[in-house]
Amino acid sequence: MDAIVALAKRRGFIFQSSEIYGGFNGFFDYGPLGSELKKNIRDCWWNDMVRRRDDVVGIETSIIMHPKVWEASGHVAGFTDPLVDCKVSKQRYRADQLFFAKVVVDGNTVGYVSALESEKTAEDLQSAAETLKRKKAIQGALAPVQPKDFTEAQPEEIALIPSPATGEPGSLTAPRSFNMMFQTNVGAMTDASSVAYLRPETAQGMFVDFKNVLDTGRVKLPFGIAQIGKSFRNEITPRNFIFRSREFEQMEMEYFISEDADWKASHDEWIEWCRQWLLSIGLPESHLSLYAHPKEKLAFYSKGTVDIMFKYPFGVQELWGIAARGNYDLTQHATASGKPMEYFEEATKKKFVPHVIEPAVGVDRILLAVLCAGYAEEDVKDEKGNVEKRTVLRLSPRIAPVKVAVLPLLKNKEALVGRARELYKKLQRRYAVFYDEAGAIGRRYRRQDEIGTPWCVTIDFDTVEKDGSFTLRERDSMTQKRINEAELFALLEEKVY
Amino acid sequence: MDAIVALAKRRGFIFQSSEIYGGFNGFFDYGPLGSELKKNIRDCWWNDMVRRRDDVVGIETSIIMHPKVWEASGHVAGFTDPLVDCKVSKQRYRADQLFFAKVVVDGNTVGYVSALESEKTAEDLQSAAETLKRKKAIQGALAPVQPKDFTEAQPEEIALIPSPATGEPGSLTAPRSFNMMFQTNVGAMTDASSVAYLRPETAQGMFVDFKNVLDTGRVKLPFGIAQIGKSFRNEITPRNFIFRSREFEQMEMEYFISEDADWKASHDEWIEWCRQWLLSIGLPESHLSLYAHPKEKLAFYSKGTVDIMFKYPFGVQELWGIAARGNYDLTQHATASGKPMEYFEEATKKKFVPHVIEPAVGVDRILLAVLCAGYAEEDVKDEKGNVEKRTVLRLSPRIAPVKVAVLPLLKNKEALVGRARELYKKLQRRYAVFYDEAGAIGRRYRRQDEIGTPWCVTIDFDTVEKDGSFTLRERDSMTQKRINEAELFALLEEKVY
Repeated sequence: MDAIVALAKRRGFIFQSSEIYGGFNGFFDYGPLGSELKKNIRDCWWNDMVRRRDDVVGIETSIIMHPKVWEASGHVAGFTDPLVDCKVSKQRYRADQLFFAKVVVDGNTVGYVSALESEKTAEDLQSAAETLKRKKAIQGALAPVQPKDFTEAQPEEIALIPSPATGEPGSLTAPRSFNMMFQTNVGAMTDASSVAYLRPETAQGMFVDFKNVLDTGRVKLPFGIAQIGKSFRNEITPRNFIFRSREFEQMEMEYFISEDADWKASHDEWIEWCRQWLLSIGLPESHLSLYAHPKEKLAFYSKGTVDIMFKYPFGVQELWGIAARGNYDLTQHATASGKPMEYFEEATKKKFVPHVIEPAVGVDRILLAVLCAGYAEEDVKDEKGNVEKRTVLRLSPRIAPVKVAVLPLLKNKEALVGRARELYKKLQRRYAVFYDEAGAIGRRYRRQDEIGTPWCVTIDFDTVEKDGSFTLRERDSMTQKRINEAELFALLEEKVY
Repeated sequence: MDAIVALAKRRGFIFQSSEIYGGFNGFFDYGPLGSELKKNIRDCWWNDMVRRRDDVVGIETSIIMHPKVWEASGHVAGFTDPLVDCKVSKQRYRADQLFFAKVVVDGNTVGYVSALESEKTAEDLQSAAETLKRKKAIQGALAPVQPKDFTEAQPEEIALIPSPATGEPGSLTAPRSFNMMFQTNVGAMTDASSVAYLRPETAQGMFVDFKNVLDTGRVKLPFGIAQIGKSFRNEITPRNFIFRSREFEQMEMEYFISEDADWKASHDEWIEWCRQWLLSIGLPESHLSLYAHPKEKLAFYSKGTVDIMFKYPFGVQELWGIAARGNYDLTQHATASGKPMEYFEEATKKKFVPHVIEPAVGVDRILLAVLCAGYAEEDVKDEKGNVEKRTVLRLSPRIAPVKVAVLPLLKNKEALVGRARELYKKLQRRYAVFYDEAGAIGRRYRRQDEIGTPWCVTIDFDTVEKDGSFTLRERDSMTQKRINEAELFALLEEKVY
């Protein structure tokens, strides 16, 4: 992970926000290559989800919506995380990420230990328990710890559990609900009447505009409304680089179906569509898995949620959630606004509130996944047969920030440079391409490898003196072959779509 | 303007935000066609500004940045509008949009009148003055009114000027500075230590990340950093539909030049580039003009600002501002952060803080401009020679939401429908296209005219029985000609770029 963060910074994919002011926790900027990569991910999704489908239309709704939207959706009352304060250190923790355990020696509880959630929470707690036993000089057999998270702490235990910041008990507060929506005030008043929220998800935009789309979009069931846009969550503990940040970008789609439709079949279709889409932008099948939320943990209205999980370096984590939400959201807004949200079905002459399947994914999480899956350090042989290290980013041509680098073999030969510039300009009309004449050709290939450019073309003397063909060098296999201009354009047309 | 707002709603370009909750003043949503149009405007700009230029790179910075950014930029202290309250009606006004005049009869001031800024402020004031004179039954000659805005009101005049809401004097307050940045709190505390702002412009992202881009982007002077993204301003009086809203999207570019460079030449080049770009997406030259800000109104660091103005139905208004800002912004951040913002120039071996030319434009304003300029109602003859009205939106193929509509002549002929669907699917891989088989062909053309689709192709019996050619019908001229598939793709390749 450190290598990926370092590369992201070094090559201008991702910076900390406001880095010159010491950074700003939970906020990130995308640099020249990162912004191209992010745009490509968005564009691929929009093309596949909206433009190439006959049953999905797009919208773009405002980030700040009427506050009643978030009352109706349940976010004002319930979009909370359990927050624990350490009164001494002023640190804050999410109670469900703060773990503790009794330290039991010969059947007697002799104290408590705590640790923050990690890949090895249980080990951390066990070793803390051993330390405590030693420190207190207690003889006897230490029982294996049984980790619980802080939401499970009994009232009388809270004063006994040490703060992870100080190591001492007595400073942690009982968990309290903390609403994760960022608040602001709209208009010139700063009081309760002017409170508004930054949206914590884009989905409500689709529900609130459902009738407007239905009335103007020439759509009929089943159909979807898709949106790409920024969302904001005031996370207590942003972490794992861009995986969990406070400002992020979502790609959500609400697929409306008849109340009589086979929701399970539609749910399954969308899970598979999302999985295939992730494969199409180059994520390896080996890193993907499915996780069905257990029935007892679902909201009362939910029919089922399946997450497509991705194996990040910091663990297997949720990438894409596909939820069958019944008709809960539309019904909530119909009740709160007094505006009917019904659909009239010609065939059955029935009126009903449609049900919905919701695939929701974060652009930043996808971007992090493609960086993690694509990053490799390899030993390769240079032209002279010496082994050297190469860093390569295996990004799919669909999303790579640069599609082709155009390299004249030598920079002081006008014929080579002229032809290279000409090809470069021609490619540039349609593709993001890069021109590079600085340094040995091998070094130039390496620079492109590191930023994920799938192909380099090298203009050499044969190009200008013989048949016009040039060398196409492929990033992953490092193979080279001769190709002409028409073949290059055909290759791009096929692979960059 | 009303016709354009109505069309925007009816055909799903633009909705009020949160319409089912009565709307939310200053916020708008883009529907299926509006979101496509908006995306096309963004993509054209990004392609032309970033991908097709060798001297500009893109970035995407966070909307919420470290609050120190806005202290250094001067926004915390100075990004204000003068706000006037009416204590009786609770209405709020921008002092510079609230006009007043003395009512002078035979050289004596007999009272005051007020009016909100409009295309006919002076007339409104004059007629209000006449009314006042009549009401007070004063004899004599009424002098022509001399409108001033409320920021020019003398302290003793404020109590005498009537509120536009009540018509009575005595309820207006003196103007006070109102900061237009939306505030929020980041983290679990809600106090002064956690205050952060929604960016009121994207430009500061480029300045704050200048060094990061310089170090990683392989750039050298002159070069630009471009960004597209949402900005937020808590406008006191949002107005003119999407022209002045509280949440909007900007496309800004900071073009850094040497301190010794001819800034005037660079400024002029960028003004012309922006003008050409607006023409390239279809805005008519007749609607564009230039406005140079007078020297005495410029900020002390500014070398000059020229606005490209557009003739909207509600008046000639600023569309694109091109500012020569010296090295003020980088210097401010260097001072505030303690991080040097210097550039080392190889050729001269000099170190200096680069100067900047800043072309800044709003996506929403461009979108409104293309709708306004493109909208027309015409009398045309139908197939039978009867005159009928057609509504047409003359959008450039570069930005039109739908590029081609594919229409089988008859919907109950399988051969026609099959060939139409086949062509439609083929086009859909690369372009936003529409398939329509419902209704008479003339009606289908009209539907496409109204949403700005440049071309319709009609599959008829000749298509399937003869040479495969089909009818290409052009929106603006309404001419029709036979064309084959390769020619259609070549046309699109040329016009949609």
